Amino acid sequence: MRVSIIGCGTVGASWAALFLAHGHDVTATDPAPGARERLDAFVESARRQLADLGLRGEGRLRFVAGTAEALEGAEYVQENAPENEALKRALLAEIDRQAAPEVLIASSTSALVRSAIVADCARPERVLVAHPFNPPHLVPLVEIVAGDAQVAARAAALYRGLGRRPVILRREMPGHIANRLASALYREAVNLVAEGVASVADIDAALCHGPGLRWALMGPHLTYHLGGGPGGIAHYLEHLGPSQERRWASLGRPALTPEVRAAIAAGVAAEAGSLGIADLEARRDRALIAILKARTPVAPEPEDQP
Amino acid sequence: MRVSIIGCGTVGASWAALFLAHGHDVTATDPAPGARERLDAFVESARRQLADLGLRGEGRLRFVAGTAEALEGAEYVQENAPENEALKRALLAEIDRQAAPEVLIASSTSALVRSAIVADCARPERVLVAHPFNPPHLVPLVEIVAGDAQVAARAAALYRGLGRRPVILRREMPGHIANRLASALYREAVNLVAEGVASVADIDAALCHGPGLRWALMGPHLTYHLGGGPGGIAHYLEHLGPSQERRWASLGRPALTPEVRAAIAAGVAAEAGSLGIADLEARRDRALIAILKARTPVAPEPEDQP
Repeated sequence: MRVSIIGCGTVGASWAALFLAHGHDVTATDPAPGARERLDAFVESARRQLADLGLRGEGRLRFVAGTAEALEGAEYVQENAPENEALKRALLAEIDRQAAPEVLIASSTSALVRSAIVADCARPERVLVAHPFNPPHLVPLVEIVAGDAQVAARAAALYRGLGRRPVILRREMPGHIANRLASALYREAVNLVAEGVASVADIDAALCHGPGLRWALMGPHLTYHLGGGPGGIAHYLEHLGPSQERRWASLGRPALTPEVRAAIAAGVAAEAGSLGIADLEARRDRALIAILKARTPVAPEPEDQP
Repeated sequence: MRVSIIGCGTVGASWAALFLAHGHDVTATDPAPGARERLDAFVESARRQLADLGLRGEGRLRFVAGTAEALEGAEYVQENAPENEALKRALLAEIDRQAAPEVLIASSTSALVRSAIVADCARPERVLVAHPFNPPHLVPLVEIVAGDAQVAARAAALYRGLGRRPVILRREMPGHIANRLASALYREAVNLVAEGVASVADIDAALCHGPGLRWALMGPHLTYHLGGGPGGIAHYLEHLGPSQERRWASLGRPALTPEVRAAIAAGVAAEAGSLGIADLEARRDRALIAILKARTPVAPEPEDQP
């Protein structure tokens, strides 16, 4: 398949590496100075990570000067421009004008909703949101928002072919699913710092040595299903639902004041110790690869259902 | 060390298995009919899991008829009675009267705060909360709430010796840390079901194939530190803090109505397919053991700090 990657920041470069490692040819473009060099460097380091995961495809990578050239012969388009509604709206309209009519156009947008960014497209039905998680070449989730169920199904099949785990939203929602869950959790994580309950490092440790460990294997609903004993989630909700609702009422509503932001930044600095961002990213990627090799999610995959 | 386990439900039995696998002798008691048989069965199956993790200690397990006998010669006490404030308050006062004065008494309470349950103790300073995560013999987190910093430090050292990751709260908070984070996330997971955004199975998948995968390796603050690029968390909070606050304001405030509870239960049933609770628990435990063997958390442990 010939894939067009429009926008080669961290997300676009990671998508490019994933398509290439699955043997697809990628034509990429990005107007930023130095974009080609950053793309080549990212793809080379991601290539080694993906080979470690058994993905040794050798698609051809071409970097070109503009969107029109990048779209020549494209059979799939993944757009990864900055999270600016006017910019994406105009860019998707331009891609929609130039790409062959049967080609699906996917936007990686995390913060914008599909209805807003397809508003100027002549063929909006073939334009979808396919939002990955950082780094997209390692984290399997792809959140799909489409205006047409067949488009969603075609895109989901394509991402499954890339070893991703697509999730199809029944309707659009700002932040889609996963970033809303993350944001809800982060609000309380900030509250616990603001309230002086524990250090930033200990709040982070409480997640990754506790519920976070289980959440790499199953989501919150299945987790409470196992928390309900033999009666499962129905028993859990009947007997502990009221205490969940009391807990919800007790959650904090912090503001990111300069003081709170400073406390978080100081706490993260203490947590990271001597490790800089690049060190932490390298540790994260090595650890992600290790658990991706080791884990078996608890819930059966839909296609595994009897 | 001689450990007294007061209350042998899932949590107490799991604690017993962990102490035994580290070579400590355990004296356990529980008034429930059949408690001894359930304890023996749990300890035997957990013993195999812990051996798989390299823990092959062979402490002696004794089940006795009552609290007084269980406390004879105890050097550490782990209380795991039902989450009933009056019951725990009276039980901890009884344990405090009977245990040798220098012995620390830890309560596994998840829902109650320390100040309430130690109120009738003659020596409250040696009574602490040490809250584990299910299943405690596999999940490393232990949340510690003590009235005395030296007691907290002594208990933390003991749990580190059991391969746990203790986190010391600076002040008590209902739900401690991790269950508050989990509850905040669950509120939005319920909201997404109530709003019909996706199926229960897809909401669960969005967590465990997305942010949950990273949260097995690092907490939310460090995750956003890496989301901030070279500028880290300070840059993230300065530039994306306002969008976090807008997201927080947009989060749902669902109620667990009969309709919502039924939709969640039906969705979990579809997600679990033919797998019953015991199957799912076995899959969870196998998967937990696999990622515990494979993972290296991203943040350096405090003792590793230069």
